[in-house]
Amino acid sequence: MQVQERYTQAITRKYPEQVVIAVAKDPQGKYNPITLGWTMITSHQPPMMAIAVGHNRYSKEAIETSGEFVIAFPSSSMAEAALFYGTKSGRDTDKFKEYPIAAEPAVEVDSLLLTDAVANFECKLEAKLVTGDHMLYVGRIVASHVNADPSVKRLYTLGPGYKMGAVRPE
Amino acid sequence: MQVQERYTQAITRKYPEQVVIAVAKDPQGKYNPITLGWTMITSHQPPMMAIAVGHNRYSKEAIETSGEFVIAFPSSSMAEAALFYGTKSGRDTDKFKEYPIAAEPAVEVDSLLLTDAVANFECKLEAKLVTGDHMLYVGRIVASHVNADPSVKRLYTLGPGYKMGAVRPE
Repeated sequence: MQVQERYTQAITRKYPEQVVIAVAKDPQGKYNPITLGWTMITSHQPPMMAIAVGHNRYSKEAIETSGEFVIAFPSSSMAEAALFYGTKSGRDTDKFKEYPIAAEPAVEVDSLLLTDAVANFECKLEAKLVTGDHMLYVGRIVASHVNADPSVKRLYTLGPGYKMGAVRPE
Repeated sequence: MQVQERYTQAITRKYPEQVVIAVAKDPQGKYNPITLGWTMITSHQPPMMAIAVGHNRYSKEAIETSGEFVIAFPSSSMAEAALFYGTKSGRDTDKFKEYPIAAEPAVEVDSLLLTDAVANFECKLEAKLVTGDHMLYVGRIVASHVNADPSVKRLYTLGPGYKMGAVRPE
C-alpha cells in the first residue's frame, strides 16, 4: 500500500545509493575532488556519464574551466576520504593535501585517477544543464581504468547522515 | 593499482546498480512501464530526478507526448516484473496486461503508482537532453508516496545479465 508523503521523507527510501568522487583541476591549478551521490550512466555508445553538482559548490568552477574530469567509483576502504571530500570545500582547502590518498595521473585528461578506487573514468565535458539547485554535467568517457584487484568493492551511502560502506546481495 | 581497460569491461565494476520503473501514458492511451538502471536525483529544491531512455525505446514517445511520468523504486519482490518491463517493448505489447502487478492511480499526473514499490515519485517533464544513444529526461517531482510497510527493500541489479535482488550492508 502506498501512502502519500513529503518528498524529503520519501527520498530516505533510496538507500543504498552509489557514490562517486569527481576530480577536476581548478583555476588555481590544484586537483580538487568532490564526493557525489547523484550520478548516472547516460550513454553506451559513445560512453557517457552524468553528475549533479550543487550551484554553490566550488567544483563547478573546476569542471567548467578545465572542461574535463575523472569520475572514480571509490572502494569501500575509501569511506573516510569520501566523507572528507564531500563535506569540505576546495575554495579554501586543498583537499588532497589535507586528506592525502593514493592517486596517479590520468592519461587523456588533465586530472587524477584514484589508485584504490574500483574504477576510474576519464571524461571530457560534453553538455551541461541547469536542473533546480544543481548543475548536471555530462561527460564523454575517453579512457577507463579498473583496479587490478578484482575483489575491491564499491562504496555506497547506506543511509542518511553519510553512513558509508560496501553492500552485498541479501 | 589502476589498469587501463576498455569501457565495456570497466563498467562491469558498477554493481550493484539501483533500478527504477518509469510509467508513462502512451499515445494509444495505455500506461507503459519501463525498467531503467540509469537514473539519478538532480535537485533538492525543487525536487527533481533524471532518467536516461534509449532513443529506440517506445517509452520515449509516452514520456514526450504525455509530459509526465512516475518513477517507482521497485521492491525486491518485483524482480521478475522489472525484468519483463525492461526487456519487452510497449510498441507491440501491453506490458501491464501481459505481466499484471498491483497499481493505483497517481494523484498529480496521469500515470500509475506501483503499489508494492518502495516509493513512487510523480514527475512533470521539466527538461530533456540528448546524450549519445540515450535521451535524458529530467522530471520535477510533484508528489511522493512510500510503501506503508517500512521493511520492503529496494531492488538492485547485482551483475551483468539482469540478475536482480536486494542488498544489505556488508
